[in-house]
Amino acid sequence: MSLSIGILGATGYTGAELIRLLHNHRVARITYCSSRQYNGKNIADILPFFQGTFDITLEDFDAAAIRERCEVVFSCLPHGTSAEFISQLADSLKVVDLSADTRLKDLGVYTQWYGAHPHPELLQKAVYGLCEVHREEIRGASLVANPGCYPTSILLPLVPLLRAGLVQPEGIISDSKSGVSGAGRGLSLTTHICEAGESFSAYKVGGTHRHIPEIEQGLSRAAGRPVLIEFTPHLIPITRGMLSTIYASSDFDEARLKDCVSSFYQGSRFVRVLGDGFPSTKDVRGTNNCLIGIKKNPRTNRAVIVSVIDNLTKGASGSAVQNMNIMCGLPEEEGLDYLPVFP
Amino acid sequence: MSLSIGILGATGYTGAELIRLLHNHRVARITYCSSRQYNGKNIADILPFFQGTFDITLEDFDAAAIRERCEVVFSCLPHGTSAEFISQLADSLKVVDLSADTRLKDLGVYTQWYGAHPHPELLQKAVYGLCEVHREEIRGASLVANPGCYPTSILLPLVPLLRAGLVQPEGIISDSKSGVSGAGRGLSLTTHICEAGESFSAYKVGGTHRHIPEIEQGLSRAAGRPVLIEFTPHLIPITRGMLSTIYASSDFDEARLKDCVSSFYQGSRFVRVLGDGFPSTKDVRGTNNCLIGIKKNPRTNRAVIVSVIDNLTKGASGSAVQNMNIMCGLPEEEGLDYLPVFP
Amino acid sequence: MSLSIGILGATGYTGAELIRLLHNHRVARITYCSSRQYNGKNIADILPFFQGTFDITLEDFDAAAIRERCEVVFSCLPHGTSAEFISQLADSLKVVDLSADTRLKDLGVYTQWYGAHPHPELLQKAVYGLCEVHREEIRGASLVANPGCYPTSILLPLVPLLRAGLVQPEGIISDSKSGVSGAGRGLSLTTHICEAGESFSAYKVGGTHRHIPEIEQGLSRAAGRPVLIEFTPHLIPITRGMLSTIYASSDFDEARLKDCVSSFYQGSRFVRVLGDGFPSTKDVRGTNNCLIGIKKNPRTNRAVIVSVIDNLTKGASGSAVQNMNIMCGLPEEEGLDYLPVFP
Amino acid sequence: MSLSIGILGATGYTGAELIRLLHNHRVARITYCSSRQYNGKNIADILPFFQGTFDITLEDFDAAAIRERCEVVFSCLPHGTSAEFISQLADSLKVVDLSADTRLKDLGVYTQWYGAHPHPELLQKAVYGLCEVHREEIRGASLVANPGCYPTSILLPLVPLLRAGLVQPEGIISDSKSGVSGAGRGLSLTTHICEAGESFSAYKVGGTHRHIPEIEQGLSRAAGRPVLIEFTPHLIPITRGMLSTIYASSDFDEARLKDCVSSFYQGSRFVRVLGDGFPSTKDVRGTNNCLIGIKKNPRTNRAVIVSVIDNLTKGASGSAVQNMNIMCGLPEEEGLDYLPVFP
Repeated sequence: MSLSIGILGATGYTGAELIRLLHNHRVARITYCSSRQYNGKNIADILPFFQGTFDITLEDFDAAAIRERCEVVFSCLPHGTSAEFISQLADSLKVVDLSADTRLKDLGVYTQWYGAHPHPELLQKAVYGLCEVHREEIRGASLVANPGCYPTSILLPLVPLLRAGLVQPEGIISDSKSGVSGAGRGLSLTTHICEAGESFSAYKVGGTHRHIPEIEQGLSRAAGRPVLIEFTPHLIPITRGMLSTIYASSDFDEARLKDCVSSFYQGSRFVRVLGDGFPSTKDVRGTNNCLIGIKKNPRTNRAVIVSVIDNLTKGASGSAVQNMNIMCGLPEEEGLDYLPVFP
Repeated sequence: MSLSIGILGATGYTGAELIRLLHNHRVARITYCSSRQYNGKNIADILPFFQGTFDITLEDFDAAAIRERCEVVFSCLPHGTSAEFISQLADSLKVVDLSADTRLKDLGVYTQWYGAHPHPELLQKAVYGLCEVHREEIRGASLVANPGCYPTSILLPLVPLLRAGLVQPEGIISDSKSGVSGAGRGLSLTTHICEAGESFSAYKVGGTHRHIPEIEQGLSRAAGRPVLIEFTPHLIPITRGMLSTIYASSDFDEARLKDCVSSFYQGSRFVRVLGDGFPSTKDVRGTNNCLIGIKKNPRTNRAVIVSVIDNLTKGASGSAVQNMNIMCGLPEEEGLDYLPVFP
Repeated sequence: MSLSIGILGATGYTGAELIRLLHNHRVARITYCSSRQYNGKNIADILPFFQGTFDITLEDFDAAAIRERCEVVFSCLPHGTSAEFISQLADSLKVVDLSADTRLKDLGVYTQWYGAHPHPELLQKAVYGLCEVHREEIRGASLVANPGCYPTSILLPLVPLLRAGLVQPEGIISDSKSGVSGAGRGLSLTTHICEAGESFSAYKVGGTHRHIPEIEQGLSRAAGRPVLIEFTPHLIPITRGMLSTIYASSDFDEARLKDCVSSFYQGSRFVRVLGDGFPSTKDVRGTNNCLIGIKKNPRTNRAVIVSVIDNLTKGASGSAVQNMNIMCGLPEEEGLDYLPVFP
Repeated sequence: MSLSIGILGATGYTGAELIRLLHNHRVARITYCSSRQYNGKNIADILPFFQGTFDITLEDFDAAAIRERCEVVFSCLPHGTSAEFISQLADSLKVVDLSADTRLKDLGVYTQWYGAHPHPELLQKAVYGLCEVHREEIRGASLVANPGCYPTSILLPLVPLLRAGLVQPEGIISDSKSGVSGAGRGLSLTTHICEAGESFSAYKVGGTHRHIPEIEQGLSRAAGRPVLIEFTPHLIPITRGMLSTIYASSDFDEARLKDCVSSFYQGSRFVRVLGDGFPSTKDVRGTNNCLIGIKKNPRTNRAVIVSVIDNLTKGASGSAVQNMNIMCGLPEEEGLDYLPVFP
């Protein structure tokens, strides 16, 4: 058996990560890689470590060719562009959209944060692909919206707790930190090693980051009523890794909170609650894992939750492969069962 | 004029930072450096970059010799040891204690977090040396407790706001991040570059860090009533730099909040509120500055405050020199007025 | 088919890397992990990212138990200790020794650099396991000496050139740089992130590093006469990665030099000469690859060669797995065919 | 007394470093900062850490205004542009040129490496400003060519040895490593933290870097005959710091080599030979120091020399201030006598 794969926007970091993961997938075979900028070049000229291992000529987007040559397409295109392209594909083949174009259900909310949507019909068509939470819906889907990295790190621990009513939906705060690869391969002073290196900073402070509506959509769905979040993203001077420190009021003790999350993810090999202590981003680097630590502060009656993922793997391309596996009836762990590159 | 200085525990990171700063102080002259471990060696054999610039023989602690040769003593000794040694000096000369031994006023609180105090009388004798806040008390003091790094980064922005009643004292959270030098020069896997480097982690989650009573003491004093804080420290894979992201409910708008903090620190050259945007730790590296950014989130009615300091300078040795300047009637900025080493 | 594996000294960096690689090996199954220090503990308590994926109880060394439960043993023990332990195993099962105890053929040279050898008979018994160079000898071996990381990075490009007589054996210099994981998991100021981070330094300058006799043994064998090398190791402030910049006089042009090395490694998928440009350590991180760039400087008549490996993979545990594959008649690439974790 | 200073190209890294150093210079006062790109903006809007400390409006280049308002001008302009601008100033005031435009004496050599020179007369007019070597010439100069960073790190240790005939001029190799700030503030994938961070690479391998003629000019002058160098630059994933590992044949022993360099720099406080061991780049970060370690390898009859500087300080702006001090008859150490920011 073999599954032919297309990748739109293959030369960015999430594209390269998809290629890395699919290289060791027993069923998937990459047959199409698009790049507007490098159209016609071999990908190994752009990313030299592919030399001798993955040589494919980059092509411009061509919907007809893709429909003919691919069974599944991953879109690593930027927000806005992605919807335009996948709208030409989503009826004919399976699509996993790594952009934000299909993640929100409410067009009004989308418009408020992003402006007019080029293809609003995609919002209803798409299934939100937080694998461990929406596995059943994903199974039958032809278009899956791959969750954002920050939302993944926040929703995985909070969804079970909100569903079970163990934390209060009011006043939730997530103080989140991301490696710089989340900013992509584009050039700016923000990603210049002399400015970002040996430094640490917050950005989009005070409720202005565009991942907020996606996070609130997931939290609200879990809580059964509208939830607002205070979300502050930060930049860690590392390439990969994301850690969210989440604060939520709770009347329940630590053991109960841990049990709740643990039980929810029983059978999901990638999401794990630590028996003791707290995870570091290095514990998941290069893997599709989400590790979670939970502590109850009795003085403040607050649960403090720390979750870590690799923003490019579980936060993007790993989760996308997992979504493909579920959509195509393959074992969910196929191509994703690795130990971290430590140290 | 010349001021003779002793440093207890001179070979650790705060000791080395004191020597760096005092090297360019126009009045201070280091006449005594103690080290139990390296007693008898030249400091330039321990820290080779001192070779040819600062050659002094390390001595064991000798109270009589110190009283004879020093007018001011900085204690960079570990918690517990410091009180023991400075109790032999504090009546005779000026002492700045960089340890936690003299920071808390309430012996009961001290005992609860640290155990029995070897010299409880020091708690009352010492003045808490948050320079820009307690300048007048410091002026007349002979023993100053130099604030901890985390408390400094949290109290500087919050004290004015709490005094003015512009933020609510209930439910304050500080999600703080520190460079690894805060852990000192001692050896552990926590500071091994292969474990701490390229990683990010939380520690002492859930209200267990010993800086909490010090922070709460400062917040309570400012608010005029008991304040609890939710405090989570994290480790950034850099050597120097500390950033606190502080969350506090507020019914006031951003301009009002900024004005309040700005006005409070008018005339204090080291503490500044940014007109716009948010500071990074790199903006203060190697300096005695604290930069503050403030944003009001109208959706959550919360003030989000970001403050940055260099944990070894404003968070330790720089503040200690500033305390000495105030205690000795010198210009407060002497030896401390530098631009950051950027990039 | 299944191959039962034992790892001596499983909790260090090369041990952890072996476990990472063998986790995805289709034939090997780890049945024994020794650790003197952590005897009796579960490895997931020492290296928390193994939780839920690799749970094995660490045992003290027990030759009888190992002989019963293992077909292949990897020794990650420190130099000196390794020989002592593998001397009890090497007659009964296949052993790959990652220490320096079995790499040198000449006992006199060994003694000169290391002192008395506890089991000199092992020197003759062991096959030097530079896989791509000594494949045939390895195939029949029961004890393989896994090459050092520096020697691997230097010998892979130079052996073909010396064999073909395309570079002069006199005056060869290798200026080599290693990530800090090469220093192991032990604690010292050298590996403290505040001292090693944001810094760069040379060590063992002037011909004093113990890898020198191993490098010279390999170069001499290739050249057919005694070769001396000037070797200077340096510390890069990263965890993984090694780059050697090698200088050798040559009367031949670049194309000829590249052809020679390329042809030599034709069919060896892990060693590759770049058509153009020079590799970075990031291009091979987490992989078993060695990438080589070559330039001829016409002004100096010198070949300048740059080779990169991951010091823990191709420089240690990856090469060890490759040796096992060859010794056991498995496909040489099994468990080793990965793309780098980029970025 | 006060000296009015202009900086051309003030917003790059060498410009910012000049401002940092001159901020604590007792005589110099910056009165003019040019920036084509940010003309009209306040520099504190470009480099936010200047807020409240150094507020100056950036202006476009205006030769008449500069001549009126400045006594000394530093050019931090890129190669090519610099000559054009300083040709309008060099007759009227003192100029220190940090670009490569005035470093070479031989127009033919310049043309070969850079192409046509816009103002060849500057080559003869300029004095090469390696402070500790050409102090006397600099004293009377009105135009000083500030040495390149790589040449500084190589010439400082080699000039005394070549002058004294203690190392052979044939076959010298410098394997040099630089922090990324040497590449400037411009944007490219080379300086993207996700590509440069956690990595190490060589560039301009095989004698193609434009600093080579400058290095050879200095070596040849010291040796009294033409000297070729094999020079390979590398990129260290840090912002500041440069280390050169230099290989030269020598018939003299270590003590003699160290004595020679030590004696040459007696009285020059910034250049020092370590009595024992080898320096790391961290030992000089943020300082104007050059530290040198020397070892003789008796097996190869070669001297191995390691020198470290901060590429932005001793390798650029610090040396430029030192040149200004010498040109203006000020104490050579003024504004430059600092200990490194350690750790």
